[in-house]
Formats: sequence, C-alpha cells, structure tokens
Amino acid sequence: MKIMTASQFTQTNTSSPSVQDKQLDQTVLEILKHVQINGDNALFAYTEKLDGAQLDNLLVSEEEFYEAMELVDEEFVTALNQAKDNITAYHSLQIEKSWFTELENEVVLGQKITPIERVGIYVPGGKAAYPSTVLMNVIPAQLAGVKSLSITTPPNQNGKVNPYVLVAARITGVKRVYKIGGAQAIAALAYGTETVEKVNKIVGPGNVYVARAKKWVYGDVAIDMIAGPSEICIIADETASPRFIAADLLSQAEHDEEVRAICITTSQEVATKVADEVERQLTDLERKQIAETAIRNNGYIIVAETLIEAFEVANEIAPEHLQLMIKNPNEQLRYVQHAGAIFLGNYSPEPLGDYFAGPNHTLPTSGTAKFSSPLGVYDFMKKSSIINYSQKALLQAADQVIKLANTEGLSAHANSIQIRKDDHHA
Amino acid sequence: MKIMTASQFTQTNTSSPSVQDKQLDQTVLEILKHVQINGDNALFAYTEKLDGAQLDNLLVSEEEFYEAMELVDEEFVTALNQAKDNITAYHSLQIEKSWFTELENEVVLGQKITPIERVGIYVPGGKAAYPSTVLMNVIPAQLAGVKSLSITTPPNQNGKVNPYVLVAARITGVKRVYKIGGAQAIAALAYGTETVEKVNKIVGPGNVYVARAKKWVYGDVAIDMIAGPSEICIIADETASPRFIAADLLSQAEHDEEVRAICITTSQEVATKVADEVERQLTDLERKQIAETAIRNNGYIIVAETLIEAFEVANEIAPEHLQLMIKNPNEQLRYVQHAGAIFLGNYSPEPLGDYFAGPNHTLPTSGTAKFSSPLGVYDFMKKSSIINYSQKALLQAADQVIKLANTEGLSAHANSIQIRKDDHHA
Repeated sequence: MKIMTASQFTQTNTSSPSVQDKQLDQTVLEILKHVQINGDNALFAYTEKLDGAQLDNLLVSEEEFYEAMELVDEEFVTALNQAKDNITAYHSLQIEKSWFTELENEVVLGQKITPIERVGIYVPGGKAAYPSTVLMNVIPAQLAGVKSLSITTPPNQNGKVNPYVLVAARITGVKRVYKIGGAQAIAALAYGTETVEKVNKIVGPGNVYVARAKKWVYGDVAIDMIAGPSEICIIADETASPRFIAADLLSQAEHDEEVRAICITTSQEVATKVADEVERQLTDLERKQIAETAIRNNGYIIVAETLIEAFEVANEIAPEHLQLMIKNPNEQLRYVQHAGAIFLGNYSPEPLGDYFAGPNHTLPTSGTAKFSSPLGVYDFMKKSSIINYSQKALLQAADQVIKLANTEGLSAHANSIQIRKDDHHA
Repeated sequence: MKIMTASQFTQTNTSSPSVQDKQLDQTVLEILKHVQINGDNALFAYTEKLDGAQLDNLLVSEEEFYEAMELVDEEFVTALNQAKDNITAYHSLQIEKSWFTELENEVVLGQKITPIERVGIYVPGGKAAYPSTVLMNVIPAQLAGVKSLSITTPPNQNGKVNPYVLVAARITGVKRVYKIGGAQAIAALAYGTETVEKVNKIVGPGNVYVARAKKWVYGDVAIDMIAGPSEICIIADETASPRFIAADLLSQAEHDEEVRAICITTSQEVATKVADEVERQLTDLERKQIAETAIRNNGYIIVAETLIEAFEVANEIAPEHLQLMIKNPNEQLRYVQHAGAIFLGNYSPEPLGDYFAGPNHTLPTSGTAKFSSPLGVYDFMKKSSIINYSQKALLQAADQVIKLANTEGLSAHANSIQIRKDDHHA
C-alpha cells in the first residue's frame, strides 16, 4: 500500500463529474422503452438474452420458495433471524409520528406522516447475491407501513433465483419475488407490465445498468440513491492493532476492484505495520485477485500530523464506512462531519454493520455522505403539511398575504384572500 | 369547467413516463460541459446570449443590495418579516437531534445528525421573480445549520436582479447572490467555477432547462426535486362556498397554463355554482389569459357519490395542494394518504400557504406526493449510523456474523471478525 502525507493524498482525491456516458445511456434508454411498450414480452426476451434463462413465469412460485428452504442450513436461518431482530430493533427507533401544534390566534399547523404505498426492491444476483440486502431494504419499508412490497432479482441460466435470497424474503414475509434483473427490472417496476406492479419507489443496489436505469426513471418514481464504488476509511492512533486494521481494509477491498481502502494514522509505526500486514493477509484470501487490485489502485495509508488533520482528511473523503480505532472514540465523534456509518473502537469492524448490528448497510458511497444518509424508515415515509386557520385568524393575516401576493404580481392569489375579507364585511 | 363523475375523471388521469427528450438533453448537456470546461467565461457568454445582459461581475454588489432596499416599500418589508417569523416558527419544529441508545451486552447504537455544508438556491427571475422562494428555501437550510448558502438568479437585460428577491436575501442574511440563471447556473453550482463555489446540494424551482440540468447533475450533488406542473385539488361538500372555491382554483390557475385545478364535490349544486363562479371571476383577472387556458385544459369539477369516493380520487391525484372545504375537516384528515400540503376548512386557502402560514411552499407536484415531501429542515441535514461494540459484545456476535459472511462468499469479511476472536484466545 502507498504511504503518504495528508497533503499528498489531498492532491489525488479529486473527483470528476459523471454526467455523460452516451453509450450506456443509449443501451439503457432502449431497454426502458422496450419494456414500456412490450411489457412482459420484453422482460422474457431480455431475460433470455442477458441472463440466458428461458422463463415460463416471471414470478417465483410457492414451490420454489419451499425448494429454497430445503437448500439452506439451520445455522444460516438462525443467524439471519437474529440479524432480522437487530435490524428491526434499530430501525424501530427511526419511526416518525405526525404532529400538530396549536398557535395563538386560532391557528393549527402540523405535519402528517404517511407511508409510501408501493415499493420495489432490487436485489443483485449472480456472484453477488446477498440475503442481507433483502433484510436491509425490506425491514425499514415494513416498519414505515409500506403496503405493497415486491423484490426483483435476476435468475441464473436455469431460471432459478438464489435460495438464500428467497429464504431471506420468506423470513420477512415478502411473497412477490420477480425473476428479473438489470435495467429491464427497473423499467418494469417504474412503469408496470402485465405481471409487474408499478411502484412509487425503487430501492436496492445493482450493477452499472441498474444504476443508470434508476437515474433515468428518477422523477417518475423515487429512488434511494445511485450507488458508486464503496469505501472504508480507518482513523487509527498508536493504540490500534495493525492486524485488525489490515483485516478490515481487506474486508472492504474484496467487494470489487473499485473499492477505496484508506487508513489515516497519526503513528508512523502503525502505518508501516499496516502495510506489511495487508501484504501478509492478502496471500490467504479467497478473493485475493479482487482485493489486491483494489488495494494496489485505491489503497492508501496516510500519515497525519495530528488527529485533527486526520479528521479533516476523513471529512473531505466523506467515506461510506468510517472506523475510529483511537483512544476515546466517543469523545472524538464530534469531529466527524461526513460519513455513512461510523464504527467506534477496536471491536466494531465494518462487517459487523454489513450484516448484524442493526443499522442499515445501504450507505452513501463515493463522497455522497456529504449530502445523503443511510437508508432508513424515513426513506419509506413522506410528509404532508397541515394548515388550519379560523376565520378570525385569516382576517388578521389577510392584508399582509394580499400585499405579498400583489408584490409577486399574482392578483388571483390576492383575490382568494380578498373574497373572504369581503364576505365577512358584507 | 368540465363537470364529470369520478370514473369519467379516472380515465383522463393517466400520466405518461417522461424519461426521454433528446433535444432538451443535448442543449442542457452542452451547457453543462461548457461551464465545466470554461468556468466563468462560459457563464458570462451564456448570460449575454440567453439573458441579453453584459455583466462585469457575476456577483451582486453591496451597492446593488442598497439600491434594492431603496426600491421596495415599508409595507412589503413588514409583511416579509412577519412571513419570515412564521416560516421560522414552523420549521423549527422539524429540527432533528442525534440519538444514542445503549443496549444490553455492551452495545451502543445511534444516529448522528449533521448539516449539509454548502447549499445553492436557484431563484427564478423575469416575470416569475418570487421573494417568497428565497424565504422558503433559505430558512430551513439555516435552521439545519448549513454553513455556506448562496443564491443564484438570472439578471434582466440591464444586468440587474429583482429588488424584492435581493431584499428577501438581505432579510435572511444571505450575502452571496450570483447573477446567473438557467442550466448554466446549475452547472456552476454543481461543479464550481472561479467565482461560484461548488455546493453539495441544489434546491429551488426553475424552468424546463433548470429542471433538466438538475436531473443531470443529480448524483454528483443532491437536489430537492424535479418540479413539474403544479395543481390544486379542493374537496367540497354542500357547506362550502362556491365563490371561495372558484377564487382558490383560479389562484392556482394563474401560475401557468399547465396547472391542474380540480374540485371534487359531493354536491351537484356546488358543482354547477363553482362552474358559474369560475366564469364570472375569470373576467376580472389580471392574468386572465393564463388562468383561462389552464382552466379550459386542465380544470375539472368532479361530482363524487360519497366523501369516501372523493378522497379516493384525491389520493389517486396526490395533489400538491389539497383543500378540505367540508364539515369537520380535522376528523376527515385520516382519509388523506397523498398530498403535498393540506388546507383545512373554509378559511385556509392555498395562497395563505404560499407566503405566510409557515409550512413550506416547495411541495411535490404532478402526483409525486405519492413518494415525496414538502421541502423542510430534514432536506438540509443528513444522518450517520453509529455502531459501538465492546470486545465482549463482538465475541458474542462473532459466530453468527462469520456464518452470514461466509454464506455470501465474503471470507475477508469473516476474517475481520475471526482475527479478533483469535486474538482473544491467543
């Protein structure tokens, strides 16, 4: 791993805008259009062409759910159920309530909270088929009160869906699982087909086609976020274990070659040892190839002069995952401005959050923690403002509202108030 | 206005997906690219070409602020200050606080709330220059704790900015106002130039170029929403005043020709009288042309069999503004599922919410209230999850986390836990 100073790193940490990709857009827009026009037929055709599967039915059958239950072991189901309980406990604390406030002068204002009605969840397939994705997306939606939840995930060449994903769906009670992947799945959820119910919001991670399709349907439906390459950033002082740090960097690096794995430390000794440990641990990894590429391309060890400088660099990165492996991490927490999830101390490694602790693993990536939040119950609820004025209250406010409306040149706005004033005096 | 039944209306209420507009995209993408490459020079050139203004400076000067203060009357400033107080009072109730919770077994979880650091606000210019836009966007951002706020608005041909907008900016304390409009303003905020500071989030309404540019930069920065045509929907029973209803429908209709103005009533008599009143009141309007076009194209009076049916239709529309001009509107509120803002009773007309009452006037339009909320303090804050496990807590969870990681084929994830387990036993 490259070892460098904070200012050397800052020069490498430039992001370039990502607005245009003509080839990708053309492919994705064509898929969106075909699905809109040809519905299920387009879905069958794309699934054959892109996933190599000839399907009779786009929906996972009850029989296939049972088959999946037979294929997984008891220990997995127990662990998944414990994860479900932890995720439910944490997300329950995010549920918001409507409120109303009575002001003086016969004015009531409020904020009414209602769930989004229909949500579609994209769950990647193939090598990256994650049952944890199901829990992390379904549970907050259910806690919000979403009535209709469906999952879509690509089938393998035999037309089958990952059994762990199906068992996770079953554990949460979601019954509608479509065997559709890619941009065609996003199109189907956004616009509906004979089989697929049109939804109001689409959530869940996916490959570059899925991400681009989500960008295009955004506005017609809501989406959670457009996920980019993921990252881990560890701030470590001299008390941190280089072995732990190296293992944690590699746990993120094994995801894919684009991952950024960064350790910022105030200790030159830790820096050197982490570099050694990473090399040593790399040799034993199952996904060595991927992790090694990520570490070579986007692995950095930054030696900071002070802890304050370390926090400045971390805030500039705004990492998806931030581990504070330092003395008194609770006290230092106030220096963190931008991060998706923050892991405190030596015994809160990032994989704990991926599966188990309870907070969501869908987190803002690629620096978007500067303006976005982890997925949560709040993503599946929406607000309506409430305004209730009495006649007396309106008459008191009337002249000022009329003045502002007229200033903006909107006389019919003014008239809507004036007509009530005249009525009172008539 | 057309009078029809609920089922007749339902057939007309179909929305078509809006994903493609090649000509518009090409124009907008070219502007985005030029501003990214040429910075301020591109901004000066576009402002000359599109706004007809030759500028020396992209920033409004202190002198221009003083000029603006001279141009506006005292009564306007008083009304604007009262509106500011009301908006501040309501939005203060939306401020969220970080929380931490200590579970059994030495586990602490939490949610840390931080403000977005830099926000840019687009304020339309020309005929639709609204000081209220400034208040409605700036105040929630300030309450959230946003450090750096800038406003951008197009200049007129003399290079001047609307004085009411400048006074509103001054009242809120925002000092940085750029004289830039259109897609070029969005590009400058998203990517930065010599003069314009790159922001993390862009909010505020705009024309079709602004909206499209926001869609394109979305992901590189956050945006509030993509605003479409606006609408008002009034549910009225036999107790409602047809004069009030007509005035309120027209107050929305005067905005632009695309506005939808809909009254759903359980009373045939109210339906007929509203139709007559709209015709009568139309003749006196300053913006008659616009309002008349909107009413002719998208004005509907729907006669519902029951109040329940009226609510069903309204929920399907998911209107930006919903007025309940019925007996006991508070009790009926529970039937509303989807609406941007809800106005209760005969003395809470929609213009009251546009300027004055306190809730935000930036609301989800065109049915997007099915999945989005009014602009609020929550749009300028973001969350980070907190996970803090003790050694004991991690060791207890270790086997289940390792099981889940291995199931997903991520052995380096498992190793990050295993290495801590081994360390303990060593």
